[in-house]
Amino acid sequence: MGWGVIEFSGTRLTHVAHGVLRSDAKTQLAERLLILHEAIAAIIAELRPEALAIEQAFVAKDPSAALKLGQARAVVLLAAARAGLAIAEYAPNHIKKSVVGVGHAEKVQVQAMVRRLLPTSQVEAADAADALACAIAHAHLSGTRAKLLAALA
Amino acid sequence: MGWGVIEFSGTRLTHVAHGVLRSDAKTQLAERLLILHEAIAAIIAELRPEALAIEQAFVAKDPSAALKLGQARAVVLLAAARAGLAIAEYAPNHIKKSVVGVGHAEKVQVQAMVRRLLPTSQVEAADAADALACAIAHAHLSGTRAKLLAALA
Repeated sequence: MGWGVIEFSGTRLTHVAHGVLRSDAKTQLAERLLILHEAIAAIIAELRPEALAIEQAFVAKDPSAALKLGQARAVVLLAAARAGLAIAEYAPNHIKKSVVGVGHAEKVQVQAMVRRLLPTSQVEAADAADALACAIAHAHLSGTRAKLLAALA
Repeated sequence: MGWGVIEFSGTRLTHVAHGVLRSDAKTQLAERLLILHEAIAAIIAELRPEALAIEQAFVAKDPSAALKLGQARAVVLLAAARAGLAIAEYAPNHIKKSVVGVGHAEKVQVQAMVRRLLPTSQVEAADAADALACAIAHAHLSGTRAKLLAALA
């Protein structure tokens, strides 16, 4: 799961941090969800974002992928709700349109634009760049001043 | 979500409690997951089960149902993992076979057998009866002495 934190004030965006959370497929599911939940809770406790932006669950064609996505999303939403963060969800096309200008942009275009808008991020990991894109979309669309966490399962 | 708690010692089963957790579809998803998580955590704190038995996620044909199932399961698994419970998963057919004797039993047969095996439960709600069936299956299959929570999303 990729994550990113930015600060914004009007149109001014500042990169705070980003990363990718991985879990060991050999570990029991409940343990993996707990590790993921504690990692997100630790990021929230350390960086103190005021809101969480998350990609709307695309309804995958594969039910097994949808089940896994649901599990990962629940853990992030729960950590955010427990910390009292405001939560906003954005459709993938909405994010692309907000960051690149077109709703059907390629992933590489989104990532290039994230690196341009947040030059100090030097983000490499695709999942983290996508999370930062979600955060940028929220900043563009909400237009107020806030520190923001975004996560992408 | 149905839930049930039983105690067992060898082949002797005792009903402890059961119930159904409902959430308001008008409430925001993260808030609903938090309410569900806190309800399960409160049941664990009060009744102090040593293990959680949960139905294996059947891979629904409907990806949207799978996503919701994944979200509900994650919240329960997380509450159990945080409380240090042992976690066991059983396939639906495995539960039916263990409780009724055949893997393709009808739901009403399962529920009738739960009421026979746990006469003091007087369980009416189908989801709670299914959760108790999952707990009974675990008791039959593990054969040791324990107090057990089962949940069914």
